[in-house]
Amino acid sequence: MEYYSRQISRLIQELSALPGIGAKTAQRLAFHILNMSEEAVQALSASIIEAKQNVCYCRECYTLTDEELCPICKDSARDHKVIMVVENTRDLAAYEKTGKYEGVYHVLHGAISPMLGIGPNDIRLKELMQRLAKEVDEVIIATNSSLEGETTAMYVSKLIKPTGIRVTRIASGVPVGGDLEYIDEVTLLRALEGRREL
Amino acid sequence: MEYYSRQISRLIQELSALPGIGAKTAQRLAFHILNMSEEAVQALSASIIEAKQNVCYCRECYTLTDEELCPICKDSARDHKVIMVVENTRDLAAYEKTGKYEGVYHVLHGAISPMLGIGPNDIRLKELMQRLAKEVDEVIIATNSSLEGETTAMYVSKLIKPTGIRVTRIASGVPVGGDLEYIDEVTLLRALEGRREL
Repeated sequence: MEYYSRQISRLIQELSALPGIGAKTAQRLAFHILNMSEEAVQALSASIIEAKQNVCYCRECYTLTDEELCPICKDSARDHKVIMVVENTRDLAAYEKTGKYEGVYHVLHGAISPMLGIGPNDIRLKELMQRLAKEVDEVIIATNSSLEGETTAMYVSKLIKPTGIRVTRIASGVPVGGDLEYIDEVTLLRALEGRREL
Repeated sequence: MEYYSRQISRLIQELSALPGIGAKTAQRLAFHILNMSEEAVQALSASIIEAKQNVCYCRECYTLTDEELCPICKDSARDHKVIMVVENTRDLAAYEKTGKYEGVYHVLHGAISPMLGIGPNDIRLKELMQRLAKEVDEVIIATNSSLEGETTAMYVSKLIKPTGIRVTRIASGVPVGGDLEYIDEVTLLRALEGRREL
């Protein structure tokens, strides 16, 4: 990228190292940043640094938060006997947006993937098992419906079953509003297998 | 975005203010940043601040650079009598990537757009006319092939013609490798109009 000055090249390089940001997008972002006001640039830069410096894991559910205990774990109105296991904080947020889930969470920070060399000890599984020493009625496994997510779900359920705690898995099937024509066969078969009486 | 802690929400908000970054991408970027090493985060943040602080306009061609005169304007091997007029520094970089253009540039930083209220005085047009006081053989207008780009090209050519300097416009037509089937009619007509003897 010798077409740009050193500072611009460096900015483009830093931006294009972010996930999903290709060379073209990085260029567009860089020039947008150069056209932003001095204050806006300071605010953007500060938000990056401060988020990194102040964000830590909740000591209970391991979601990313800026306090020792996250707002959900702190909330006595939530049902602390029901734990939903998710892969990451974004998945937690996705369920929180529904506004209907009243239990708490456990964030694994990944999924078991033999392909990527991620084993059970590389995710927050030990921490989940430790939480089960307290009174827990149900563990809902809400890992993704991917190979890794399913592998993790199987592993976690096998680990928990001996304790006698109820283990469930969120349903997989046709998404609401989804057009059957465009849905892959595996999902269609899952939807068929999971059919219910009307 | 009450599902996240304050610091994370702020970072997501700052990122989603960037062009082409929606809420989902901002979330993904934010969590990527939180997972980056301390040093990588510092480097990213510093590159943003430093680019903004050190980048200025070349006093000759008005491209964004970090010196008073950009590397191209400084280069005595380039033909300073041929000026290519482009809308922005990214377009300059696009032509530099071809490695075949030996003249210099003039960056307008925009295009005339009555729709957006951008007039001839809002882009670096006066500065272009001032450069023509020196010896110039040709001005190549390489603004985009959009309504605004074409309007600007027409305006610039009318402005320059009385000076007797040769004014040209880059060709528009079917992109190399383009499949006629998928190309819009306006481009197809342009390609037809611009046909050459073989």
